[in-house]
Amino acid sequence: MALLETSKYSPGSVLGSVNPDLASERQTASFCVEKLTALLDGGAEQTRIRRAVVEAIESDPVFSRENQYFQTQNERYEAAVRKAVHLQKKMHEMGWTENGPEYKYIYRALSGDVAFLLHRVFMRSISVLGSDKQIAKWIPLATRHQLIGSYAQTELGHGTYLQGLETTAVFDIAAQEFILNTPKISAMKWWPGDMGRSATHTVVFAQLYIHGKCHGIHPFIVQIRSLQDHSLCPGVTAGDIGPKMNFEHIDNGYLMLKNVRIPRDNMLSKFCEVRPDGTYVRQGSQKINYFTMTTVRISLISDEVLTPLMKACTIAIRYSAVRRQSKLKPGEQEAKILDYQTQQEKLLPQLAAAYAFHFINDYLQELFNRGYREIQRKNFDMLPELHALSSGFKAVITHHCTAAVEICLRACGGHGYSLLSGIPSLYTKILASCIYEGENTILLLQTARFLIKCFMAASAGHPVPPSVTYLAAVKPGKCPAKNKLDFLRPDIYTEAYQHVAVRLISSTAAKLQDLIQSGVKKYDAWNQCTVQLVQAAKAHCHYITVKNFAETVEKLETKAGIQRIMKHLCDLFALHGIFSNTGAFLHDGYISASQMDTVTASYLDLLAVIRKDAVPLVDAFDFTDKSLNSALGSYDGQVYQRLYEWAQKSPTNKDKRTELLENETPPVLTDKQ
Amino acid sequence: MALLETSKYSPGSVLGSVNPDLASERQTASFCVEKLTALLDGGAEQTRIRRAVVEAIESDPVFSRENQYFQTQNERYEAAVRKAVHLQKKMHEMGWTENGPEYKYIYRALSGDVAFLLHRVFMRSISVLGSDKQIAKWIPLATRHQLIGSYAQTELGHGTYLQGLETTAVFDIAAQEFILNTPKISAMKWWPGDMGRSATHTVVFAQLYIHGKCHGIHPFIVQIRSLQDHSLCPGVTAGDIGPKMNFEHIDNGYLMLKNVRIPRDNMLSKFCEVRPDGTYVRQGSQKINYFTMTTVRISLISDEVLTPLMKACTIAIRYSAVRRQSKLKPGEQEAKILDYQTQQEKLLPQLAAAYAFHFINDYLQELFNRGYREIQRKNFDMLPELHALSSGFKAVITHHCTAAVEICLRACGGHGYSLLSGIPSLYTKILASCIYEGENTILLLQTARFLIKCFMAASAGHPVPPSVTYLAAVKPGKCPAKNKLDFLRPDIYTEAYQHVAVRLISSTAAKLQDLIQSGVKKYDAWNQCTVQLVQAAKAHCHYITVKNFAETVEKLETKAGIQRIMKHLCDLFALHGIFSNTGAFLHDGYISASQMDTVTASYLDLLAVIRKDAVPLVDAFDFTDKSLNSALGSYDGQVYQRLYEWAQKSPTNKDKRTELLENETPPVLTDKQ
Repeated sequence: MALLETSKYSPGSVLGSVNPDLASERQTASFCVEKLTALLDGGAEQTRIRRAVVEAIESDPVFSRENQYFQTQNERYEAAVRKAVHLQKKMHEMGWTENGPEYKYIYRALSGDVAFLLHRVFMRSISVLGSDKQIAKWIPLATRHQLIGSYAQTELGHGTYLQGLETTAVFDIAAQEFILNTPKISAMKWWPGDMGRSATHTVVFAQLYIHGKCHGIHPFIVQIRSLQDHSLCPGVTAGDIGPKMNFEHIDNGYLMLKNVRIPRDNMLSKFCEVRPDGTYVRQGSQKINYFTMTTVRISLISDEVLTPLMKACTIAIRYSAVRRQSKLKPGEQEAKILDYQTQQEKLLPQLAAAYAFHFINDYLQELFNRGYREIQRKNFDMLPELHALSSGFKAVITHHCTAAVEICLRACGGHGYSLLSGIPSLYTKILASCIYEGENTILLLQTARFLIKCFMAASAGHPVPPSVTYLAAVKPGKCPAKNKLDFLRPDIYTEAYQHVAVRLISSTAAKLQDLIQSGVKKYDAWNQCTVQLVQAAKAHCHYITVKNFAETVEKLETKAGIQRIMKHLCDLFALHGIFSNTGAFLHDGYISASQMDTVTASYLDLLAVIRKDAVPLVDAFDFTDKSLNSALGSYDGQVYQRLYEWAQKSPTNKDKRTELLENETPPVLTDKQ
Repeated sequence: MALLETSKYSPGSVLGSVNPDLASERQTASFCVEKLTALLDGGAEQTRIRRAVVEAIESDPVFSRENQYFQTQNERYEAAVRKAVHLQKKMHEMGWTENGPEYKYIYRALSGDVAFLLHRVFMRSISVLGSDKQIAKWIPLATRHQLIGSYAQTELGHGTYLQGLETTAVFDIAAQEFILNTPKISAMKWWPGDMGRSATHTVVFAQLYIHGKCHGIHPFIVQIRSLQDHSLCPGVTAGDIGPKMNFEHIDNGYLMLKNVRIPRDNMLSKFCEVRPDGTYVRQGSQKINYFTMTTVRISLISDEVLTPLMKACTIAIRYSAVRRQSKLKPGEQEAKILDYQTQQEKLLPQLAAAYAFHFINDYLQELFNRGYREIQRKNFDMLPELHALSSGFKAVITHHCTAAVEICLRACGGHGYSLLSGIPSLYTKILASCIYEGENTILLLQTARFLIKCFMAASAGHPVPPSVTYLAAVKPGKCPAKNKLDFLRPDIYTEAYQHVAVRLISSTAAKLQDLIQSGVKKYDAWNQCTVQLVQAAKAHCHYITVKNFAETVEKLETKAGIQRIMKHLCDLFALHGIFSNTGAFLHDGYISASQMDTVTASYLDLLAVIRKDAVPLVDAFDFTDKSLNSALGSYDGQVYQRLYEWAQKSPTNKDKRTELLENETPPVLTDKQ
């Protein structure tokens, strides 16, 4: 990692051949980049561990992503399998374990470009849903990779609505087996990762039938490929679902089952069991399982959403400090595009959002750890709030970050559109996060349902969970800000966000009530309010994000330099949100038109302030050139050289020369005519 | 084209195996689809010609795009070259000419998936910039495809700012030649289509030097590859710039020149000539050339922007009528996702936008035709307005449609993310339109400059061009709407849009003035206003779009059925714009909070109204299944079958079985364990 020789950067690093336009940005950093990196990592020791993992992974040629943009889907898949197998060796060699401190950095260091990720989901679902006996049988086999697991839930015609799944598992008492079937085409399992080509086993979710009675969806372990020759098992049809916008390295698959028989023991039976005589028995509480589903939504935020946004910001901001285009002042040389207000207005709010979401992610992680401890003590009180927060924040953060990565891409102009910039693949990958693990609109409506319920409870004087107590204290009032400086006060803008959230939740609750009272059926009334319910859920999450950012900044009092720049970012995040949603704040006059003009002025001023530290702020994310894999975002800013070097990996038609052209259009001009 | 047997659809067509959920949508169409298609085409005769072209192209296997999603970049390129060559034969065979009525439908029918498009730009630039002698020499050669042309303007380090181009052309009097050079890496030509592998010649833009004096940018015809063996000419380095988000079929290229000598005659010399003695002579007016650049921006709207949006709407809306998910009413079967308000709110405004932009495109085409006639009469008065309109609308329409296609993609959930849905490639292609032919932010600032100038002129009582006369009539006032119905009055909402445009333009003009009067340098003041100037330019274009849509609807009085549904779409487009930008209308109280609640109610009501005709409204775009190339958007709605059939083109590892897996992880489980 070539870092700059200045006290603001880590010691011992060298400037090397850094583009002078980029070097000058670093020389004027207002804060210590290394300290900010440690803050983001959760301590200097974490930074050290992370860097050691990155170093070990990136120095190993098997994990190289250098040629990735030129590879076919098949090459990507084969490389990912190779990496997955090699990773097991590497972990052994390095002494890394799944419970060790290094583990969380491995996936990040690989940029997720590895196969068999569903194998872990397969194992987790057995651990959570399986009986002790099942765990004892399958987990050691899976751990030793003597089988390759997948997880088959979604069907061609069924995603969100699990009760609608059509795959059936009929219990055959005589044979003590389940018979699995895909009754029609829409029942085909579709999407499961690692299933198209790799998996030998999978957990299939199917409607359980005993004596002709349906007991709903249950999980079954099904072998789909031979362990001898990897051919499909009898009755199994499976393959790859075809190309996607990204994830070329994953063999997302389809699966059809025709009278596939599995032993009775293969139904995962921690919570439900089918006895030999066909008796169906429910046992234990499924609530912990339900909790697992919500934690997945939170756990994906860091790796799948924040990291891509931080990478996109790093690439776009470094490029904007190096790219010069047009003249800002007559007679001078062409200006860095980062000096144009419009460019700042594109990129800096995304940078602020990356920090805002990093801190809200910390907050959510902590909350979920607490929730987990409570649940282990059989206290399930926090579950509804955790479910609402995980749903809402998954939706809001994935949506916001996806849009942000696209803005970064466009802000790099034509070069951003080249795969070599690294941003297109960040975009096409992060986009999927808006859809998987719960489609965003559906999730926001789940949050909204919780908010409406809490609002009603709070209005009736009943106690509500901590994150929504603000709904009880509805104050009409007006924003007290008198000038630009007032809008840099966290209490002022946090209050404004709170006001909007309360207003949207309460007015939608009122609309819902009115419709029902006027005789509209409850489900119709709900549907007629969903556009506004989504807005309300977003406003709630936005408010909590701003509030949490402000509180985080406050706690940085011992780190003056960092606190100052974080305060600017927090202000920018908050004011950008108001500037981009003026209507929400103007609607009931909470913020007046002239106050809104002040917000705009304050917001635009902040852009120029943060612009000065923009490069150090992305340097603090501490991505290596290899992890960015970008011709635009390298630490040294040698953009044009890299683009040219990389472009030369492209196919040429040297071998066949004019074959294609000549056959059809014989040239008659002589050379140099 | 399998069309439905109902009087609302074209006669003689059959229902076939249309998905019943889709068929039911068509049975209740409130208007005649065939008549709307004719309206969109500009007459039934145009529809007939278009369908004949589509039929001829789509029945020819060389033009097939069926395997496209599974092809590598190289395969895509080679197919595009094959198609380009075949197209020449086809045109000859069919009797189609470049000036015939069929021509404009060919590109659409090919979905742009053809090589040598830059060959036409090469020819056009010679026709426009070349002397009669040069035209006589080069155009026949190009027409007979005895050379393959490209157009090399953009450089690795230079896009927008043409004066900054670094390639040099030094005149050598002794040899009567120009010596072309790429003085540094940033001067390398970068992006030109057809240049990476195909072109033999290109028009290079370079700084002209005579006797050491720079005369600025001029165009030169340069041969880059041998006509004998297609090898690169001496001094030329060229190749493909590497993978992009889309356009895999195009060999966008780079070009470096090292002391490449070309005859004096190769400088295109209609406007500027270098005499044998080195005398530099300017001649004629370049204004017509300048006009050509602005018309390109308008001409791309139809093929590159509207067609993709219409396709995306067709796919997403048909799919939403077929896909059932979750229950809207307890006890009923799962609901069509199109029946959810949130889904309607995603898709129907995009459908309305497709119509709105179709009509504004008609308006712009007409205006430019008029402009062209004036310019031929040496009347250049319309140029500034045409430039402002072409810049602003190119930016606004490409931006809006790109966002709309992304919404369509996400609205299809996981299946939208599959390349087989057809939407990802529409998205990755349309995204480029925000960047090429003028980056959108730059273009909007050009429009803003015109608007500020006109606003100043209008304020001083001077005459201004027709599209901005409204700036002279600034009325403060309030919106007179009293109820929901009032907001369905085009005069009411058009006036509201006009009010916002005037307010944003005038307030930004005032800010600019204030800054300059307070001593800020003019260029600094401009930069400090650019975020708001962009907003003002967008508001202007939005206003004109709404106004034009309303006027178009008014003119449909003889077509009652169509007029009714178009009126609904116009209302929806207008109210969606207000609903999505409430702040702009609330800011000065032009629309009050309670009026805004009425707008919201009116807007949400409209969704349910238009939803009933949603499928017929996309059917009217009249895309064949082949042109959509989508597993989700087929006319018959057999979504799941198509996805499954297509998926089976994917690679499998049947051939090598467990090779990859077995080497590293020997299985020990026996089958059926």
